[in-house]
Amino acid sequence: MARWDPDSRGRLRQAAFELFAARGYDDTTVEEVAKRAGLTERTFFRHFSDKREVLFAGSAQLQEAMVGAVASAPASLSPIDAAVAGIEAGAAQLPDVATARQRQAIISAHPELQERELIKFASLSTAIAETLRERGLDEPAASLTAEVALAVFRTAFERWVDEANRRSFPELVRDSLDQLKAVTA
Amino acid sequence: MARWDPDSRGRLRQAAFELFAARGYDDTTVEEVAKRAGLTERTFFRHFSDKREVLFAGSAQLQEAMVGAVASAPASLSPIDAAVAGIEAGAAQLPDVATARQRQAIISAHPELQERELIKFASLSTAIAETLRERGLDEPAASLTAEVALAVFRTAFERWVDEANRRSFPELVRDSLDQLKAVTA
Repeated sequence: MARWDPDSRGRLRQAAFELFAARGYDDTTVEEVAKRAGLTERTFFRHFSDKREVLFAGSAQLQEAMVGAVASAPASLSPIDAAVAGIEAGAAQLPDVATARQRQAIISAHPELQERELIKFASLSTAIAETLRERGLDEPAASLTAEVALAVFRTAFERWVDEANRRSFPELVRDSLDQLKAVTA
Repeated sequence: MARWDPDSRGRLRQAAFELFAARGYDDTTVEEVAKRAGLTERTFFRHFSDKREVLFAGSAQLQEAMVGAVASAPASLSPIDAAVAGIEAGAAQLPDVATARQRQAIISAHPELQERELIKFASLSTAIAETLRERGLDEPAASLTAEVALAVFRTAFERWVDEANRRSFPELVRDSLDQLKAVTA
């Protein structure tokens, strides 16, 4: 094993997800995760600050991608279309569906992780609303648009990770958006 | 002081809010709250399970009122109008604006309380979505409608408790709803 194995991060995540699923998040230690990945605890801590971060390490990149896309969307786009550009940029940050599904099952089984997820989404909504205000949108339209965009993102995500789903994430986003427009019309 | 002072609950809340605001939530004890209200700790615990509950005791009634109104809205109402009926019923559960403003300032100053508030809202959204499904609405429309209704409720609430605001809560709800329809049109 090379000291700077380029895929050690992915291997650690995979090992962690398997152990969280098999024996529960609380009963899995960092030592066990590292061992299963064939790596040391020290390597684990080079990639993740703690056990929980294996699940949430992608949130910062997701937020950065979404906010960046909203900020750089053409000025001619309506607020909701700028927010949708943010969702599309967020979609590109998602892992493959099997990994996303594994992650979601672990989070759903654990109230503390669900709370963490809620906080991450609230922070994302605040950041998108702020970006929309910088584009010149007033309140409460900016906060409402951000909340609506995240509701579209989340419902599309929940359908995407459903075992029975065979549709792509972008298709589900478009469908959620259409349904949103229908219910608010 | 009568043993069964009918307003002891209100006095405890008022005393708690004043102390939380003056010295911070963490540095206020139940003993101090009871003393300031001229009541005993035992009386405090007859009304609230713990210190945090002084801030969140209204959430259960709020959820019950909102869900009840959505469930009993005429079948002829569109999903969004049924959800708005829920918001209107929720509005009737709000305290006076000065108390709501005090409470909001305390929560905004404290991450743990903000998390609690997020969790309460997520639970409210889930309950409203479930009620909309019972009315025959499919997913993801039910979840989207519930999220949108709560976004309207929350943005109206935030504007209502703003020091500069002079408008009534129902007016702000109508305005948020109009703006929502404008951004999603």
